[in-house]
Amino acid sequence: MSGTKEFDSIEEILDRNLQGEEYEKVRQILYGRSVVGLVIPPTAENVGRKNNFEIKAYAIPCPEEQLRSPRFVRIGLFQNELPLPATSRIQDMKDAMFKMAKEAVDAAAQLDTNVFCFQEAWHMPFAFCTREKYPWCEYAESAQHGPTTKFLQELAKQHNMVIISPILERDETHSDTIWNSAVVIDNHGDYLGKHRKNHIPRVGDFNESTYYFEGNTGHPVFDTEFGKIAINICYGRHHPLNWLGFGLNGAEIVFNPSATVGALSEPLWGIEARNAAIANGYFTCAINRVGTEVFEHEFTSGNGKPAHKDFGHFYGSSYVAAPNGSRTPGLSRTKNGLLVTAIDLNMCRQVKDHWGFQMTQRLDMYAELLPKVLEQDFKPQLVKK
Amino acid sequence: MSGTKEFDSIEEILDRNLQGEEYEKVRQILYGRSVVGLVIPPTAENVGRKNNFEIKAYAIPCPEEQLRSPRFVRIGLFQNELPLPATSRIQDMKDAMFKMAKEAVDAAAQLDTNVFCFQEAWHMPFAFCTREKYPWCEYAESAQHGPTTKFLQELAKQHNMVIISPILERDETHSDTIWNSAVVIDNHGDYLGKHRKNHIPRVGDFNESTYYFEGNTGHPVFDTEFGKIAINICYGRHHPLNWLGFGLNGAEIVFNPSATVGALSEPLWGIEARNAAIANGYFTCAINRVGTEVFEHEFTSGNGKPAHKDFGHFYGSSYVAAPNGSRTPGLSRTKNGLLVTAIDLNMCRQVKDHWGFQMTQRLDMYAELLPKVLEQDFKPQLVKK
Repeated sequence: MSGTKEFDSIEEILDRNLQGEEYEKVRQILYGRSVVGLVIPPTAENVGRKNNFEIKAYAIPCPEEQLRSPRFVRIGLFQNELPLPATSRIQDMKDAMFKMAKEAVDAAAQLDTNVFCFQEAWHMPFAFCTREKYPWCEYAESAQHGPTTKFLQELAKQHNMVIISPILERDETHSDTIWNSAVVIDNHGDYLGKHRKNHIPRVGDFNESTYYFEGNTGHPVFDTEFGKIAINICYGRHHPLNWLGFGLNGAEIVFNPSATVGALSEPLWGIEARNAAIANGYFTCAINRVGTEVFEHEFTSGNGKPAHKDFGHFYGSSYVAAPNGSRTPGLSRTKNGLLVTAIDLNMCRQVKDHWGFQMTQRLDMYAELLPKVLEQDFKPQLVKK
Repeated sequence: MSGTKEFDSIEEILDRNLQGEEYEKVRQILYGRSVVGLVIPPTAENVGRKNNFEIKAYAIPCPEEQLRSPRFVRIGLFQNELPLPATSRIQDMKDAMFKMAKEAVDAAAQLDTNVFCFQEAWHMPFAFCTREKYPWCEYAESAQHGPTTKFLQELAKQHNMVIISPILERDETHSDTIWNSAVVIDNHGDYLGKHRKNHIPRVGDFNESTYYFEGNTGHPVFDTEFGKIAINICYGRHHPLNWLGFGLNGAEIVFNPSATVGALSEPLWGIEARNAAIANGYFTCAINRVGTEVFEHEFTSGNGKPAHKDFGHFYGSSYVAAPNGSRTPGLSRTKNGLLVTAIDLNMCRQVKDHWGFQMTQRLDMYAELLPKVLEQDFKPQLVKK
């Protein structure tokens, strides 16, 4: 970002400058009910230190019920910069990525993580800003049978962990088309299915429609041993209806693997996934890349600025938001990090019972409104004198 | 709130404890692009001082266009505690309210306010927590012909100001039913129409369905000389579809007159109206009451706590959010206040062009999904092994 050194996080600034009661007041309004820090095993911390990622771990408290046992689940989110320069040979990059991923999943396993999610298109540079088709299209691979899925199936089975793997997908059975997809591998290492990104940006460096089209997989919710999970990929977080779709299909945790830069979206980052958690009565997990990726050839961004070779700073800041509106602190804006969050899925129904947003949502009214709006001769409900 | 003294605002705490570059980093992430402080005329400040309300005024900058002139509008939001004890005689309360309202509108006029909005059910105590029908139902009055509307029509005409007046409405032509409504009076003093609260809470002290039912006025947008405006009353801010409805009908400013207390909703307050501004490409105005209202008879709140006579502390904190995600600081959590915000309505379309959320929203997909969900034998899109 024009040569300025990026700062670590606003949480770090608030922690350092505010004390006692004033800190607690600000914290409570900005972050909601307190989360509890979890002990991180020294062996896991060692793995992180050796492999250049921080580990943060929190528990989000939830009341007990009489008839249902708690359904404790630990979510692991991993944010990372590229392990090699963006211009590296594809196989070298993949090898380095797999090595880093294995260490991250191993550390998460030591923290008893049940469901693990990588950032958007985690196996490659976020090269869509270049609008170059090659070499980037070569990164695309089969969702079910590609090397990334095969690699993660082993890890998932070894650690009894559900793994969500957002990749660039090549659909060989449908004319070699490319998609932005998230693959879900269950805790036995079996391929459970995939979801394709529903909403594709056309803004600044993010005209990803150069590479792939709007997803055609609806709003699937994956019924795993550790809860009903769904994936709202990146730009879909700006679309309340996309979040709603997963909620209507019964999601308890919705992951939002992303790649976004500060100048564009940072003030929105803490708002959107958290609003979705509140409105839909589920947990949301916002995951962003870290660092700056520099490409070989210059490109322009449709913003009047000179051609350049990087996209800007991916600001990390991954976090988990709960249906009661509380959230964890964010990971760093600058460092690789693993965020493990212990939740009780029972909170979803508890919050729905408490607030009643689903009971009071009057879906019938909106089911009538939307088709009307789609008509070519739609007349908005406008009151004039 | 269990006797603790309420603090003024987190903005005050941040201003006092953070300096220079660190302040600016936190401010930018939490509040988005800078707003500009406006000069407040001393005569207006005097009115505020004499009548016990603060005045804050900001401008939200917006780029100029070539073909459209700027469409500058100034929005005035007023938050207040009851001018008399909640148990006062109705006519005394109304008289005191009207006196305070006149001063607030006069001060707003001195700041060239074009559209002014009061808090929810502004002409009465927020007595619905008591579940007593009398004397509270006596406050209800005709939207078009009641004394509150008549009183404000004079002020609107005098100051060339659109005034939004959220009241308890009595519909005498439909069996004397009661509604939670917002009346819109145009800048010539003419009654333009009304909107009835779409989503009615049933949570804790907020089971307002004791008094009124879900609104039957759809999602009207009022086409005024100062922009297309709509009103999302209180609990509707938790419903992304309600915000969407006003957006689909073309709203440029959506007001959210509210009455809400800290323990319930404060961490959500900065999230929901702001998320709606971002998602729908319009300005949103969140307005909350201030202070604690004490009633004559004790009541319980369905939360296991002993009977009590007050609702808790209404935490004010009114603010304006822009479609680009930036927002003004909030008014005080404890004091009466007038917030005037200068905006350019052109920003709405500019942000839609920039982000493209409306172009990419795939309304057809959701118009198909919603009716399916409503079917009694709806099968969620669930992926199982």
